[in-house]
Amino acid sequence: MTTEAALIQLLRGIAGSKAARGLLDDAAVIALGGEQIVLTLDTMVEGVHYLPDDPPETVAWKLVAVNASDLSAKGAEPLGCLYSHALGEDGWDRAFLAGLAGACERFRLPLLGGDTVRMPPASARSFSLTALGRTGVGDPLPARSGARPGDRVWVSGTIGDAGLGLEVLRGRPAPLGPAEWLVERYRRPNPETRLGPALAPQVSAMMDVSDGLLIDGGRLAAASGARMCIDAEEVPLSAALRATAGEGLEARMAAMTAGDDYVLLFTAPPDRDAAIRAATGALGCAVTMIGEILTGEGLELRHGGEPVPLPNRLGYQH
Amino acid sequence: MTTEAALIQLLRGIAGSKAARGLLDDAAVIALGGEQIVLTLDTMVEGVHYLPDDPPETVAWKLVAVNASDLSAKGAEPLGCLYSHALGEDGWDRAFLAGLAGACERFRLPLLGGDTVRMPPASARSFSLTALGRTGVGDPLPARSGARPGDRVWVSGTIGDAGLGLEVLRGRPAPLGPAEWLVERYRRPNPETRLGPALAPQVSAMMDVSDGLLIDGGRLAAASGARMCIDAEEVPLSAALRATAGEGLEARMAAMTAGDDYVLLFTAPPDRDAAIRAATGALGCAVTMIGEILTGEGLELRHGGEPVPLPNRLGYQH
Repeated sequence: MTTEAALIQLLRGIAGSKAARGLLDDAAVIALGGEQIVLTLDTMVEGVHYLPDDPPETVAWKLVAVNASDLSAKGAEPLGCLYSHALGEDGWDRAFLAGLAGACERFRLPLLGGDTVRMPPASARSFSLTALGRTGVGDPLPARSGARPGDRVWVSGTIGDAGLGLEVLRGRPAPLGPAEWLVERYRRPNPETRLGPALAPQVSAMMDVSDGLLIDGGRLAAASGARMCIDAEEVPLSAALRATAGEGLEARMAAMTAGDDYVLLFTAPPDRDAAIRAATGALGCAVTMIGEILTGEGLELRHGGEPVPLPNRLGYQH
Repeated sequence: MTTEAALIQLLRGIAGSKAARGLLDDAAVIALGGEQIVLTLDTMVEGVHYLPDDPPETVAWKLVAVNASDLSAKGAEPLGCLYSHALGEDGWDRAFLAGLAGACERFRLPLLGGDTVRMPPASARSFSLTALGRTGVGDPLPARSGARPGDRVWVSGTIGDAGLGLEVLRGRPAPLGPAEWLVERYRRPNPETRLGPALAPQVSAMMDVSDGLLIDGGRLAAASGARMCIDAEEVPLSAALRATAGEGLEARMAAMTAGDDYVLLFTAPPDRDAAIRAATGALGCAVTMIGEILTGEGLELRHGGEPVPLPNRLGYQH
């Protein structure tokens, strides 16, 4: 079986154009007629990225949300989407479309077209969505690779909620109110996609956190040729997470290695602090400084001022 | 099980933007910064659109070719593509990528990005490709819906070769040379994608023939609110097809109802004949006048000047 890493290595040999950005980013960029078109594609597979008994509205919602999050991380305003639908049972398909319609409206990604296909019997279905966004030519287009020593590390929103929501679905005990909220965060991620365009002029590097804060932080550091130091105590946790899992190091480790956050991880020089707080405050979004960029490479974790060994598993590995 | 037609009906309720063109065309169009972005997406499913023992290079080739054909039918110049790869066996994946690289180069669709996913065991794999093209704002963007009574009906290339190639693969006897050529036409469709942009200024309606000349002709007529009359004797057949199946009405019926032609079907007023021949001659492409547009609706077939009843099956129904 080909691994994803091996395939991507082969694909890099094919995707030689500048627009492909070495396939190192979450989006491709084409400069065209005074605009930059930003493109991203994500596929969700039954039994891999969602479960057959997940509510179909939420499967569609997530498919749109994850692509909208990728566009936002590039500072792009949404333009629209195309998607491929694998036909299934009628009620399921109708509920899926209801979720799709809601998400296309929420994330300002009007449905432009696509394809419908029938799978062979008993085959897992999959759904691919391509989302388009735009920025003006000359507008900043943050990559993973721009972090420099001395930059601050920031994250939007709270970390670990969706991962804990998945644990609750799998039977982990939790107080009733927090449990519902956490499960909703897992099933219907709701990234504030106006945040990326608002932050883009201030940041040196930006990406969305989808596989886990630590694994994605390590990717940003590697792409930037620098070292990232994260202070675990500064990582923002929701009230629901704290009520369910506490806020000790163990809970923080679980939160930082859980996937499906769909928040923004970004870096910026210290002189941008006020501009960042102003831009995010205007949108009513919380952002938190969680660390700094150092010379060197890799990831460094601290807690209470002391170094903490990295866990074996940094996040979701494809 | 939801039918494709039922799902598309539901999708039309969601895809309300002008860019979606009512999901009636093979492509979406966004006007942006002095350009029109043309977008198309096609998915190929193992066991449905290709067979597990088809050469993997040809599966990838076809995935790119069918999307390139859609762009060409809109008069668009290719910009690039994104695709979703379902991981499989290593040798298969490598051969697929080799075919993809060749087709991206042939059809001038550089690979910009995409996604890789793993399917559950024993599940059919599927591959989705989104292709982008462009035309200048104000450039003609042919739709299916522009044919008017009095227009001529034209087709590029030859009809039925891929369908007969598939029959040869399934055991139909054929002379050796023609057999190889026909199978190649089925496995590696090679649309001349410069033709669409060259024809766009001359045509009243245009689409690519992918499901069969008769079924696609009927769709163009329906979208235009007009009647299409096709003279079966004028439908261009290749030497290989004639050597294998003859050129009688039966062979012509089979050719006109076979899929995977990926040629252009277009209509234009008679005063465009010379311009059409000049534009296509400059590219070394053959085009043939095969009928006319009448008032009314539906499809009409003639042979030897006499009406011929339509076959029950007009082409490939999704």
